[in-house]
Amino acid sequence: MSDKNRRRSRGGGREARRELRSSQAQNTINKPYIKRNIPVYDLVSDEVCELIENNAEIILEEIGIDFRDDKEALSILKSNGCDVKGERVRFPRGLCKKWIEHAPSEFTQHARNKSRSVEIGGSNTVFAPVYGPPFIRSLDGERRYATIKDFQDIVKLAYLSPGIHHSGGTVCEPVDLPVTKRHLEMNYTHMRLSDKPFMGSVTAPERAKDTIDMAKIIFGEEFVKENTVMISLINANSPMTWDGTMLGALKEYARSNQAVITTPFILSGAMAPVTPIGVLAQTLAEAMSGMAFAQMINPGAPVVFGSFASSISMQSGAPTFGTPEPAIVLFTAAKLARRLGVPFRSGGSLNGAKIPDAQAAIESLNTLWPSVLGGVNFVLHAAGWLEGGLVSDIRKFIIDADQCSAMSVLTDGPDVTENGQAMDAIRQVGPGQHFLGCDHTQRNFETAFWTSKVSDNSTFEQWSSEGEVDQMQRAGEIAKKLLESYEPPEIDKSIDEALRSFIEKRKEELPNTEA
Amino acid sequence: MSDKNRRRSRGGGREARRELRSSQAQNTINKPYIKRNIPVYDLVSDEVCELIENNAEIILEEIGIDFRDDKEALSILKSNGCDVKGERVRFPRGLCKKWIEHAPSEFTQHARNKSRSVEIGGSNTVFAPVYGPPFIRSLDGERRYATIKDFQDIVKLAYLSPGIHHSGGTVCEPVDLPVTKRHLEMNYTHMRLSDKPFMGSVTAPERAKDTIDMAKIIFGEEFVKENTVMISLINANSPMTWDGTMLGALKEYARSNQAVITTPFILSGAMAPVTPIGVLAQTLAEAMSGMAFAQMINPGAPVVFGSFASSISMQSGAPTFGTPEPAIVLFTAAKLARRLGVPFRSGGSLNGAKIPDAQAAIESLNTLWPSVLGGVNFVLHAAGWLEGGLVSDIRKFIIDADQCSAMSVLTDGPDVTENGQAMDAIRQVGPGQHFLGCDHTQRNFETAFWTSKVSDNSTFEQWSSEGEVDQMQRAGEIAKKLLESYEPPEIDKSIDEALRSFIEKRKEELPNTEA
Repeated sequence: MSDKNRRRSRGGGREARRELRSSQAQNTINKPYIKRNIPVYDLVSDEVCELIENNAEIILEEIGIDFRDDKEALSILKSNGCDVKGERVRFPRGLCKKWIEHAPSEFTQHARNKSRSVEIGGSNTVFAPVYGPPFIRSLDGERRYATIKDFQDIVKLAYLSPGIHHSGGTVCEPVDLPVTKRHLEMNYTHMRLSDKPFMGSVTAPERAKDTIDMAKIIFGEEFVKENTVMISLINANSPMTWDGTMLGALKEYARSNQAVITTPFILSGAMAPVTPIGVLAQTLAEAMSGMAFAQMINPGAPVVFGSFASSISMQSGAPTFGTPEPAIVLFTAAKLARRLGVPFRSGGSLNGAKIPDAQAAIESLNTLWPSVLGGVNFVLHAAGWLEGGLVSDIRKFIIDADQCSAMSVLTDGPDVTENGQAMDAIRQVGPGQHFLGCDHTQRNFETAFWTSKVSDNSTFEQWSSEGEVDQMQRAGEIAKKLLESYEPPEIDKSIDEALRSFIEKRKEELPNTEA
Repeated sequence: MSDKNRRRSRGGGREARRELRSSQAQNTINKPYIKRNIPVYDLVSDEVCELIENNAEIILEEIGIDFRDDKEALSILKSNGCDVKGERVRFPRGLCKKWIEHAPSEFTQHARNKSRSVEIGGSNTVFAPVYGPPFIRSLDGERRYATIKDFQDIVKLAYLSPGIHHSGGTVCEPVDLPVTKRHLEMNYTHMRLSDKPFMGSVTAPERAKDTIDMAKIIFGEEFVKENTVMISLINANSPMTWDGTMLGALKEYARSNQAVITTPFILSGAMAPVTPIGVLAQTLAEAMSGMAFAQMINPGAPVVFGSFASSISMQSGAPTFGTPEPAIVLFTAAKLARRLGVPFRSGGSLNGAKIPDAQAAIESLNTLWPSVLGGVNFVLHAAGWLEGGLVSDIRKFIIDADQCSAMSVLTDGPDVTENGQAMDAIRQVGPGQHFLGCDHTQRNFETAFWTSKVSDNSTFEQWSSEGEVDQMQRAGEIAKKLLESYEPPEIDKSIDEALRSFIEKRKEELPNTEA
């Protein structure tokens, strides 16, 4: 099974890249995802990883993981050799690792526009938007509960941002729609207003099923059976607990060959010990138990080792972000995932700031740099995250997406061809002269440097005369223009109609409030 | 000579660390400098470095470097085997490298407080303040020409910042003092208001001599002859040019065994080609020619391979900072320096922003991360740089210094002891519980996490009720309190008086304006 997945994955990637090259009408600077040409940074040695892996096995075997409110899960785990007492599940040493060997090391998540399909795993990095906030800060800075209109705006911006490769999932919570039916309009937004790959609903198993059914309308039933067309976020209830809702969604997706990210959600000091190595052992144990369970459901189903790890302030108990300890965890967890042979999700542009100021920028980049150099494969929250995940911020989305596009230049590494060496320029110009007009500069004028769309590099005098606009305000203006320029990608009219009738039918069937 | 230096260096470091450990009265969290426990990040392979090194040798041998307005320099270069035609100097292949072998790979720069002496080179990193700006932005945001009062304020803040290891040099230009005498008060400020190591004046050979003479008053004449007590910035006039002023200062310092940083100053597209590999070959050639020249002056004198490299906007010609291309240059140049066996200077918190907003933060961290992971030994401009180096910003100094202190936790790497593994905590707490009150958390409560002094992690409601203060404003408040709390380090009264009489004597001797 795992071999089949690997083969499929490679074929899909090649095909997608071919399609991208030939689609000259599209924005050809867009890369569908990052394929790193630079090495990953190993912060810790293999010996340190072995120590963590040993501690994780001790947690799995001696302390155990709770699988709550899911008798089927407990029965599956028991029948596969786990020691199950009540809801506490202990895994014999090596059992999780053995199951995880079935998982593909890399897989294709197909997009409805094939040139936008992404490869998850290996030396690839995919940037996806913010996930989860109930609040929005709009492009003019207003903070309020989010609506489906805000959700649509973020999906549009992700679609229009070359640095963002994925449409994401719950880019904000559209609280103006009933919880029971919300997922239908969220899915539709991703499917209709974007053609980038998207994430599935996980708030209930039947919502996961709705997502798969809608995907079948777009991709065709047979295609969805054989291919991965969505990826979904399965958070642990750390420490060492999976709850019934998440297990239900996990089972639904794994059985349908759709990817799940099993993610320990840890604020060090609250849900895990206050030390990076402690956080790492617990993270590894929790993630392994989730991935192994997914493989027991459907061996070879694509899974991703997820890690969300930050800290709390020991003074106030408030979550903190962008500090050095989570960076150490991130670099190390990425290496642990590589050693396990599975794709890794972490990172993003995490921060605890209330507005997109210097604090937001600092904390975000202190997460983004380890994400990129650590070799994270799926970077959720890469753009738009604010206030510890309470707020999706439109202006911060623009600032973050700009930085994501810069990272794709860094990860290309230097051009070492003759043109990259530029010895002809150095010879032509010589000591004491300038390179502005030389042949090499003229030849490379247009593609020479990555250019920020948000930063201001004018003189102080010019900046001052233009009203002393800061980065936050510039980002708001850019968002406004982008949203005004937005046009939805094309879609087959019959598919669109089929999606809308499915949604209307389900809306009638579903209750207006949760039971 | 080089062996002597290496021995001296190691001894000095050990002694300093011992002194630091025993000085419990001091701020014991202060580290005098960073000693990295984590590996450096090699962005490029050895093969790419070999290609760049070969191109640098071609530049040195075939194109040549101009040594301007210094007949003595040309004569020294000629007598050491260079091909000298007019002011153009061509170095036979391998000649520079051979000379650079005399230079120490690591050396101690002594501070007058020995517990603050720094090791430059090896796996050490020293953070030094902004250097050079004629303008200041004060703690309440006013932008104007800088004065000696502003200079003193920055020196005080550097003295009070645990993340900043060095007092720096021209932390801003005190334009209220005559150019001819300015260096005397600048030196005195570093020597009297701080006890961290400092940089020497380079604006004229006789000002370099004044700096050495003043250092002799503090350290004693014999000590200065045998030890390095200052480090000075010798910028190339790129491309491929050294001017007479810089050569004069270089000779003065090298002859006195004081350290020089030979730094190609490159904005790619103007002073070098538009490609990273082109910039690197030229940077290497220029830096090697400067370091080799210093070794011809005094074999074994401490030198540092410097690199200042950013780009210009191909649209407007304006300098840009924090973009991916300079990060590629930085990582690679650091590796080239390691291969040469000399300390490396680069990086900092470079940016082109006009205020310490998100742009300033982003561009700064996009320079700081490569500085730290690339293994830069001497990070000039680590705090306070704004507006492409035109402005020293007090608020940004606070924000940057905070980040520098975070980096020293990252570079420690994780604690892998039993306490760091925290298995007792995980056993004690178990699934579904929290770690707030467990024994391990209580035991590690005070030292668990690095804490930002500038970031706000309170709730939105609290932040809002307290006036929606942003990072920039908080930094201003912190600077104000720090400056109010400042007390100068002790100094022997007779030394202070000797310094003042030296300064008064020189002020009488020196003209009020330059000839």
